[in-house]
This record gives sequence, C-alpha cells and structure tokens, in this order.
Amino acid sequence: MARLPTLAVLGATGAVGTVMCELLTGRRNVWGEIRLLASERSVGRKVRCRGEELTVQALTEDALDGVDVAMFDVPDEVARHWAPIAVRRGAIVVDNSAAFRMDRDVPLVVPEINPEQVANRPRGIVASANCTTLTMIIAVAPLHDEYGLRELVLASYQAVSGAGQAGADTLHDQLAKVAGDRMLGARTGDVRQAVGDDLGPFPAPLALNVVPWAGSLTDGGWSSEEMKLRDESRKILGMPDLKISATCVRVPVLTGHSVAAHAVFATEIDVEGAREVLRNAPGVIVVDDPAAGEFPMPIDAVGTDPSWVGRIRRTLDDPRALDFFVTGDNLRKGAALNIVQVAELLAEDLTRP
Amino acid sequence: MARLPTLAVLGATGAVGTVMCELLTGRRNVWGEIRLLASERSVGRKVRCRGEELTVQALTEDALDGVDVAMFDVPDEVARHWAPIAVRRGAIVVDNSAAFRMDRDVPLVVPEINPEQVANRPRGIVASANCTTLTMIIAVAPLHDEYGLRELVLASYQAVSGAGQAGADTLHDQLAKVAGDRMLGARTGDVRQAVGDDLGPFPAPLALNVVPWAGSLTDGGWSSEEMKLRDESRKILGMPDLKISATCVRVPVLTGHSVAAHAVFATEIDVEGAREVLRNAPGVIVVDDPAAGEFPMPIDAVGTDPSWVGRIRRTLDDPRALDFFVTGDNLRKGAALNIVQVAELLAEDLTRP
Repeated sequence: MARLPTLAVLGATGAVGTVMCELLTGRRNVWGEIRLLASERSVGRKVRCRGEELTVQALTEDALDGVDVAMFDVPDEVARHWAPIAVRRGAIVVDNSAAFRMDRDVPLVVPEINPEQVANRPRGIVASANCTTLTMIIAVAPLHDEYGLRELVLASYQAVSGAGQAGADTLHDQLAKVAGDRMLGARTGDVRQAVGDDLGPFPAPLALNVVPWAGSLTDGGWSSEEMKLRDESRKILGMPDLKISATCVRVPVLTGHSVAAHAVFATEIDVEGAREVLRNAPGVIVVDDPAAGEFPMPIDAVGTDPSWVGRIRRTLDDPRALDFFVTGDNLRKGAALNIVQVAELLAEDLTRP
Repeated sequence: MARLPTLAVLGATGAVGTVMCELLTGRRNVWGEIRLLASERSVGRKVRCRGEELTVQALTEDALDGVDVAMFDVPDEVARHWAPIAVRRGAIVVDNSAAFRMDRDVPLVVPEINPEQVANRPRGIVASANCTTLTMIIAVAPLHDEYGLRELVLASYQAVSGAGQAGADTLHDQLAKVAGDRMLGARTGDVRQAVGDDLGPFPAPLALNVVPWAGSLTDGGWSSEEMKLRDESRKILGMPDLKISATCVRVPVLTGHSVAAHAVFATEIDVEGAREVLRNAPGVIVVDDPAAGEFPMPIDAVGTDPSWVGRIRRTLDDPRALDFFVTGDNLRKGAALNIVQVAELLAEDLTRP
C-alpha cells in the first residue's frame, strides 16, 4: 500500500467515540484520511480530530468504500449488521461491541498481551474486550506469565460512563438533586424519593448508592457483565478452563473502573517479585504506597492510558495467592485506547513493505 | 435484682450513639434509668431517648456508680481507659471499639450467632465487632452452619459514616462542591482540585471516587480494617484458622456498608438450599430478584435492622462455592443495634429471678 491507510470511526460522537478522536489527535499519526460515520442523528456534526475539523457523515454502504480499517463503537445489533458490510467493502473491522467477541473466528486482542492474534482474522473482524475485563487483564496477564494463573475472584467498582454518555448525564442529574440536602442517605428510600423516576440506563439510583448489577440476566443469576469478565478473560489468556468468579457493581464515579482482585497462582508468590513484574508490564503503572496515601483511584486514573495497580499484597492464608486493586479509564484502555491500538497494529500490517 | 437495670450510654451524641438512643426508643423497654455520658464538649446537650428528654452528663468515675450495663461508643484509647473503671464501679461494659475485641478474656458477641458467649466475660467486658464484619458475618454464619465454611474472599463497599459524623459531613461538603459541574470527573485530578484540601477523615476525596483504603497500615500492606474483618470473623465463628482475604474500599455512600463475598464450603452447594438457609436466618432478609431490579443496596438497607442479602449464585467453576452480595446499615446492625442487642442479653441475665 503506497498511501497511508484510510480509517473510519463508527460512533464518533458517543462517549467512547469522542475519546477515540482525542486519542487520534494525540498519538503518532499512521492514518491517511479519517472518516467519521454515525447514525442520522449525528450527521453534520463537526468533530475536531488530529487537528482537522471533520464533519460526521451518514453511515451508508457507499460511505465505507475505500476504508481500510473501521473502528466500531456502536450497539451490538448495529455491529452485527454493519461489520460484515464493512468487511465486504474492503475494510478490516475493529469492533468494541459484544457481538463478535466470543466468535471462534474473531480474535479478541489486547495489544500488550496477544498482539499476534490480529493476524488471525478469518472474518475480517478483530474484537476489543469489555471495559472491566481490559482494565484488569492488563495487570493479570503479566502475573500469569510469571506465576501461572489458577483462579481469579473479582469484585468491580464500575463508573457510570461505562453505560455511555447517558450514564454520565444520569449521575450528574442525580447528584444535583441530592447535593445540599444533608439529611439524605440516612433513611430507607429517601434517596430514591429525591432522585425520582429518572434512573437513566440503570436499574436504581447511583447517587449515594452502589448497585450490584450491570448488564442483563443470564443463567444461575449471573449478570451478562460478570459472564463477559469470565469468558473474555479466558479467551484473551488462552485458558478456556480458568476458574473465574466476578461480582460486578456500579458505583457513583464518572469515569474509571476499578477491580479488587484475588488471584491464585500455581507457584508461591514473592510479593516484591510480583511488584517488579507489574512495574515492568506494558500498560501498567504501580501506585502502591498506602502510608503516603498512594493507591489506584478513579479520580487519578481518569484521562490516563495505563491501568493503575496498587494494594499489592500476598494473601495471608495462601502463599500462592495475591490480592491487589486496579483502576483504569474505562473510556481509554477500557475501550477507545485498546481499539485505537489494535487499529494501529493493523495499519502497521497494511503498510509493511 | 428487684429493679430494672440502669443503662449508661458513652458517646451518646456521636453518629452511632444517636442511633443507640433511637433504638432504645423503638425497642421493647428493659431498662430502668438511662444515663447519657460524654466528653466535656457534649455535656448539657439534650437528647430524646425512650420518650424522655435526657441531659448529657460528664463522664466521671462517680457518674458510673450504680450503672449495671454501660454501652461504649468511644475511640479505642478512651475505651481502654474507661472500660476497666466502669467495671470496677460495678458495670458490665459492652464496647464498640477495637480495644478489647481480640482479648482472649473478652467475648466478641453477635447475638444471632454466639449469644451464649455473653456469659463468658472474665474482665466484665463484652466486645461488639467492626461494622463491616457484622454486616457480612450475619449472612456467612448460617451458611457455615449448613455447609462448613472453608474460605472467604471479600471486597467491601463502605459508607462514609463508618468514619463517624465527620465522614458524613465530609461527603456532603464535597458533593456540594462537585455537583453542578458536568465537566468534572473526566480529567485526571480535576475532582481533587474541585474538592480542595479538606479531606476530612479520609486519605483522598470520596466524591466521584472510590478509595481502596480504610484504617491504618499493618504488616504486608494490609489495612487495619482488612485485618479486623479477618481476625474478628475468625473469633466470632470460632475458627482460628479460617482462610480470609479482604479488600476494604470506601465509596461515596452516606450509610450502608456492602460486601461482595465469595465463600468456599466443605460440601457442594445447592443454591436453592442456600437461599432457604438465608431466608430462615435471624437478622437476614433475602432480596434477590435481579430481573425485577431487586438486589441489596445501601439506599434501601439504610435505616433498617437486617443484613440484606442478594445476588446469591453458585460459583460456576466450583460447586462448593457461593457468591453473594450483602448490605447492612453500618450504624445499626454494624454498630448501635448489635451493642443494644448485647446489652439486652445482659439485662435479661441480670433480671433473671
């Protein structure tokens, strides 16, 4: 390919799409034309990307012609419809929906962990993982390489922007309703009453609350979000039988997913060794000095690329287990950044002489 | 004892003490005189308790004379000083601090679990457990009785009022500062800047954040709060070698501690059986219908007595393990209610003919 590849962004005006455009502006440029495509609602909007002011165009079959790589951040059913069309028109699709993640013929790629898998794409589609999975797996994978992972027990603290711009708007609206009333939060149901019926994309109020639910109901009472953590982690690590148990909980944080992880390994853990493994791991920064008030937190990790890992400690009652806490920006490494990184791997592949 | 026993409340004007007085008003009355004692700062304040308006008196040695049962909600060092004095003056002390919980000669009593232990008090002191431990252990103990507990992995979602009234005030102040600015929470450090330097009793801002730290630093990077969960659970269950690993996290909730629990048992779990065990357990209510939006949450559990248990599911990769989520009012069962219940057991004992 003599020219730089053409990139399309589907869903460019959403919470993740906005960050994709920001990232394209800040990173080393590997792209020729960048084309922003969206549903009718957003057509005509101007978005600044890579120093240019781009106009959002309607997503049509013809609009995909000449696209080399298409980054999708759209609902599952939109991805299911449009990804094969984009592939037929000649694009490689990097998809952030759950539509293809568990497809045997679609690799699930985290460039820090399994970059070689981008080449293995019989359907012309590469999937990007769920935001909570990505935040956590970046820290777990290098530990697995060193110690041999046997089991994961996870509890999440997920930000509202994981449910898109509507999630962020909902929390802002609810905070405006509860802030200032110092009596709220002390009587059963009083926050519900103050917040009213507008719950946005959530099953319950988020202001002054935590909601132990994300996604839809699957067998045995597990949420779809919890199943994604299990299934996607297994696929990324290439460990189809890995024992994983997760509880996914939404918290009143704007952006930044956190996970409390208990990881059991095949061999005994030396905690200084584990800390060193994490310090050297791509995409990870270690923030672990509780005496100095340093631990991973959403208000610090938001707007940054890496997964922040801290509270690293060997399990007291099991020398083969490690407990730690990890926080990452769910819109960046948890979504936009991973997609952009995968797209860049593909661009490299396409422009290789 | 011909008369009804005299009760003293130490720390009656604090976050927990206020709830103690509320509970004494609402519950079956087993007390004669009720005497409210506090530090100089609170002396003279009027507090409504059991329909009477009581005046807070100064805590002096003489003020303890004639007291049969003294409920303490005061800092560790105050308890350490005053509990032996109260005992010498003839009182039995029910203490909510951490000063005596791990003392071999002080029972750690949860009336739903080990009520018989109140009789075993060589020092004249009975301890009440940490708020997070209490919330969780109420659900774990009946499952242990049925299935034989082998291991617990816990992650907490702890409310700010666990750090007393100062904690609640801090969150209210911070919410007032961040509510209304819809741009906040999207850039690293912007919430820190908006909140400013007043962090109250916490090491970092709580508004729009989660803080993976509670208490002080102990060996191996564990927080004192995490160690309490381990040590106190072992003592209450009478299992000194139980494997427990906990990560304690503070969240922007006023009142209501939650715990995501992964419990491994000796025998295979039948999830309907486990649900039935919990339905019949004292102090527990089961709220577990995700399809109907029913799961345990702080905004519902606050102001109520029981631990709310839901998200009950058998671990997919381990038939002997159960995952569930539990929420309870940290000021009620997590503190004031447990203390009042223990005091009532003692009153019963004292007035038995």
